[in-house]
Amino acid sequence: MGGSLGMALKSKGLSSRVIGWDVSRDKLDEAIRAGAIDTGTFNREEALEDTEVLVFATPVGATSALAADWFPLVPSRCLVTELGSVKGDIVESLTRLAGIRCYFVGSHPICGSEKSGVQGARSDLFENKLCLLTPVERTRKQALSRAQAFWQALGMKVVSLAPALHDQVMACVSHLPHLLAVSLVNEVGDRKLLQYAGSGFLDMTRIAAADPGLWVEIIFLNEENVSLELERWRKHLEKILKMLQSKDAGALKEWFRKAQRRRLNLGQAGEKNPSLRRRR
Amino acid sequence: MGGSLGMALKSKGLSSRVIGWDVSRDKLDEAIRAGAIDTGTFNREEALEDTEVLVFATPVGATSALAADWFPLVPSRCLVTELGSVKGDIVESLTRLAGIRCYFVGSHPICGSEKSGVQGARSDLFENKLCLLTPVERTRKQALSRAQAFWQALGMKVVSLAPALHDQVMACVSHLPHLLAVSLVNEVGDRKLLQYAGSGFLDMTRIAAADPGLWVEIIFLNEENVSLELERWRKHLEKILKMLQSKDAGALKEWFRKAQRRRLNLGQAGEKNPSLRRRR
Repeated sequence: MGGSLGMALKSKGLSSRVIGWDVSRDKLDEAIRAGAIDTGTFNREEALEDTEVLVFATPVGATSALAADWFPLVPSRCLVTELGSVKGDIVESLTRLAGIRCYFVGSHPICGSEKSGVQGARSDLFENKLCLLTPVERTRKQALSRAQAFWQALGMKVVSLAPALHDQVMACVSHLPHLLAVSLVNEVGDRKLLQYAGSGFLDMTRIAAADPGLWVEIIFLNEENVSLELERWRKHLEKILKMLQSKDAGALKEWFRKAQRRRLNLGQAGEKNPSLRRRR
Repeated sequence: MGGSLGMALKSKGLSSRVIGWDVSRDKLDEAIRAGAIDTGTFNREEALEDTEVLVFATPVGATSALAADWFPLVPSRCLVTELGSVKGDIVESLTRLAGIRCYFVGSHPICGSEKSGVQGARSDLFENKLCLLTPVERTRKQALSRAQAFWQALGMKVVSLAPALHDQVMACVSHLPHLLAVSLVNEVGDRKLLQYAGSGFLDMTRIAAADPGLWVEIIFLNEENVSLELERWRKHLEKILKMLQSKDAGALKEWFRKAQRRRLNLGQAGEKNPSLRRRR
């Protein structure tokens, strides 16, 4: 997502210079070739000179440790943010690192895909999508409004949520569904039935092709909420089983109808503006 | 799917005349305008005159009752088939109705979508997709080979499965996943969290927009197998919960990796040839 962010900033003329930092020269060169960054460096001081916005586009398991090396060098009035799908621990440690100046606010642009690396990057990734910000009490108002303006300039709708609530919401709408998709592929695969899968199954399991390392970190950082969602799902399954076994076609149909109405309201994944539609 | 079939037969020049039968004049006219049929009729005798292939493209709950009116009128050597997603009861009753001539074989082209009606029809729907045939002991060899040739001429790969096995397989790869998608939409919707859904969620739940009436019939006709799958899923969830709570990152990562490998092997839903790839 860091690659897409660089491309988007450059294509919209929002940054005079996008500097990439990585431990791999190859990745930096690849990002330059792809047009995701203007220059690359291994040197933090160089990366931060006159920098107005520092974005950690890092796997969630690495952000806190990495950030500890950066915060002491961050220029005053440089906004710091990160793009993680889990917030609790990360926002807590980065807020602490940000100190009393606290020009830090967590961001979660909801537009990830199953692709990793700069090859999967797209300059229009953020367009018309939702970005969740997770300010805490200590977050400076000015930092929050700069973060809002930053994502809005990229075409996003911005909503603020407390970090703990963010993680509960994501456990429900993203992390648990991800586990269901992975489980579907493996259970059907273990029974050697994948060759019978149709396009519905392919769509349902697209996200199971995402990077395992990134997702294990996300799931473990949000383990408590994800476990609660798994417990809820056991109850959902029991509810469905009861509907089936009671042969209550009316109830089942009403349940299907409600989902159909809701799903049609959400629009298509490929559509321009699905996450900003009105929903019930 | 009847509309797509008519379009495909006509576009490939496989039929000199495609005749539609329906109880609604409006639907027949719409199908003619869409190029799905050449002529439409309410009259069974007229529909069957010189007809070589009779296809029931009916909701699975209606096929058996409807077929009882047709079989007595079917010309000798007319192949009869249907397109249902569940086979057990339907194949049994249609085989009985087909009598000793038994020019009947069940077909399940695995290329459905969440769309209904002739507006969603596409002449290339069958291209490079899988078609399951469900012959029984009494099925005439000639009928089976004609059905194979029929679907192959439409660009499909054809595989035969016993009806009972077909229904077990579909409970696993299609009917249970459908219930998961519906459940996802409703559980997230009941908690008013649908506005936070990203494209992974949209893809996972696309099929929840399908026709509720059709799906309730499918689920109830395959209720026994679907209930077994639901029971299995309770165990899947317990397995995931244990992996999480034991904090066994290695096991979780290996489980994610296996799914990633398998899912990448399956290709994309939009891809030309996903269901014919090699799988593990």
